[in-house]
Amino acid sequence: MRYYLGVDLGGTTTKMGLFQTDGTLIEKWEIPTRRRQEVDVVLPDIASALQEKIKERQIGKECVEGVGIGVPAAVDKEGYVKRADNLNWNDKHVRRELEDLTGWKVKVGNDANVAALGEMWKGGGVGYDNLVMITLGTGVGCGIIVNGQILTGAHGGSGELGHMFVEHNETLSCDCGKTGCLEQYASATGIVRLTKRYLEKHEEETVLDIHTVTAKDVFDAVKAGDAVAMKIAEQFGAYLGHALSRVGVILDPEVFVIGGGVSKAGEILLKYIQKYYIEKVFWPSKDTKFTLAKLGNDAGIYGAVKMLL
Amino acid sequence: MRYYLGVDLGGTTTKMGLFQTDGTLIEKWEIPTRRRQEVDVVLPDIASALQEKIKERQIGKECVEGVGIGVPAAVDKEGYVKRADNLNWNDKHVRRELEDLTGWKVKVGNDANVAALGEMWKGGGVGYDNLVMITLGTGVGCGIIVNGQILTGAHGGSGELGHMFVEHNETLSCDCGKTGCLEQYASATGIVRLTKRYLEKHEEETVLDIHTVTAKDVFDAVKAGDAVAMKIAEQFGAYLGHALSRVGVILDPEVFVIGGGVSKAGEILLKYIQKYYIEKVFWPSKDTKFTLAKLGNDAGIYGAVKMLL
Repeated sequence: MRYYLGVDLGGTTTKMGLFQTDGTLIEKWEIPTRRRQEVDVVLPDIASALQEKIKERQIGKECVEGVGIGVPAAVDKEGYVKRADNLNWNDKHVRRELEDLTGWKVKVGNDANVAALGEMWKGGGVGYDNLVMITLGTGVGCGIIVNGQILTGAHGGSGELGHMFVEHNETLSCDCGKTGCLEQYASATGIVRLTKRYLEKHEEETVLDIHTVTAKDVFDAVKAGDAVAMKIAEQFGAYLGHALSRVGVILDPEVFVIGGGVSKAGEILLKYIQKYYIEKVFWPSKDTKFTLAKLGNDAGIYGAVKMLL
Repeated sequence: MRYYLGVDLGGTTTKMGLFQTDGTLIEKWEIPTRRRQEVDVVLPDIASALQEKIKERQIGKECVEGVGIGVPAAVDKEGYVKRADNLNWNDKHVRRELEDLTGWKVKVGNDANVAALGEMWKGGGVGYDNLVMITLGTGVGCGIIVNGQILTGAHGGSGELGHMFVEHNETLSCDCGKTGCLEQYASATGIVRLTKRYLEKHEEETVLDIHTVTAKDVFDAVKAGDAVAMKIAEQFGAYLGHALSRVGVILDPEVFVIGGGVSKAGEILLKYIQKYYIEKVFWPSKDTKFTLAKLGNDAGIYGAVKMLL
């Protein structure tokens, strides 16, 4: 029996999976991502965790065909990361370092791209090879697959949909330092901001509480017929749907796969996005499909392994 | 000696080129594009013109390796066109029909994509294999090359940058029937519209004449230091630069190649576009290069042949 290892490196937690070479997930587990200022232990921690698992299962080191890893940063074709703010990384040769630490062949990808690959392989994108996956969480992530391959971009900066400029009338800065980025409106935190802004200016009856509201509250209230929540959902849908119409005229994908915490709202979410997508996209791309992601938090480890196949 | 034929089918004129298989252009010529309602003679006209040229040069039919053709429409991978408004085409199997008419192998591409391929091969994009070409003419065309290959899209609708939604506050319809498309501001006609709108509302000293102004007049006036023309150039730069920042966060190309009639204004045009691109693009893509197209009207016939190589 031969094996692959898939790693999804996050800012807080690192998820790992042991796979057979036929793509069957045998075991998954996770470790905390320890970020230290003095000594960088992120990759050594991962290497140790992988090696211990192999030992624990009495798998010979030579039976592991390779390690795939998704990282929260722009990655070039050599597996090099110039900068990863979440990890305090600068000039990090991820592939080379992890190969030196483990002795296994390593492939590195951007986490959002890798998750897209996972959804294409085993999730909401099965049957398609031109897809765009959007992850609506704390931020807005995006991975792009063209002809079955991850689109990396010339500087590892493709699929940075969260930082698409969408709003002229914004004074608050995005984390990136610019203003009017999609992430400021279409992420979980963005939806909360839209709601608070609305509630500050309007005195309307609603179940939403300005102090405690979450993105989940908003879509729960939409399902219960709350008029204010439905207005927020329209605002969210307009920002994201119009942004995706721009992806549509550029890439013309077969399908948009929507994942991340916000996507737990279900099919109703797609309705709001699609309405505004169709309003503005050029006609050849009007039939592009919208679907929900299926792998949840496992998309990253699946996609990491798919890079090796 | 063996040959390729390159065809650039336009709404008014069809350009053709006879090439050696090493890529040398031997002769180029053009014919009018005859659009008839009753009988469609567009492809038969092209087939006749190509066959006559071969006969005239006493080249054996079997010495022609193939025909590449760029058409002003979305084209799928089979060389099928669902709709081409400029040509009154519906459900047109371009590849199949032209193969039946000529007996040669035919490859079909969207004209903007094919021009991008031409610029990559022999023009402003030499040395790059991830590029976006923007053609600023009557409309805004766009061709996308990823890893040296034309990006077609799932429905032949990739690179429809001219119909990217960019302006909420627009009441006038674009030719496509929607409002606020980039083409309404960044094409030659768009620049004229921006100028007229400005002159209608402002009484400022300028060399620009509201009745006769052209895009060329605007950039000539910019070079002469005309303050109004410089304001129009800023508006144009903001629309196009911001739109390209959206292409940047999605595709992260190596280079933007700017062509078409408006690009004859030269390097000064790039300055206005780049300013607004950098203002809004996410940092990994901030160093993407901007360059002018070099092949002019020949980009299409070069790219058509490049499809065959």
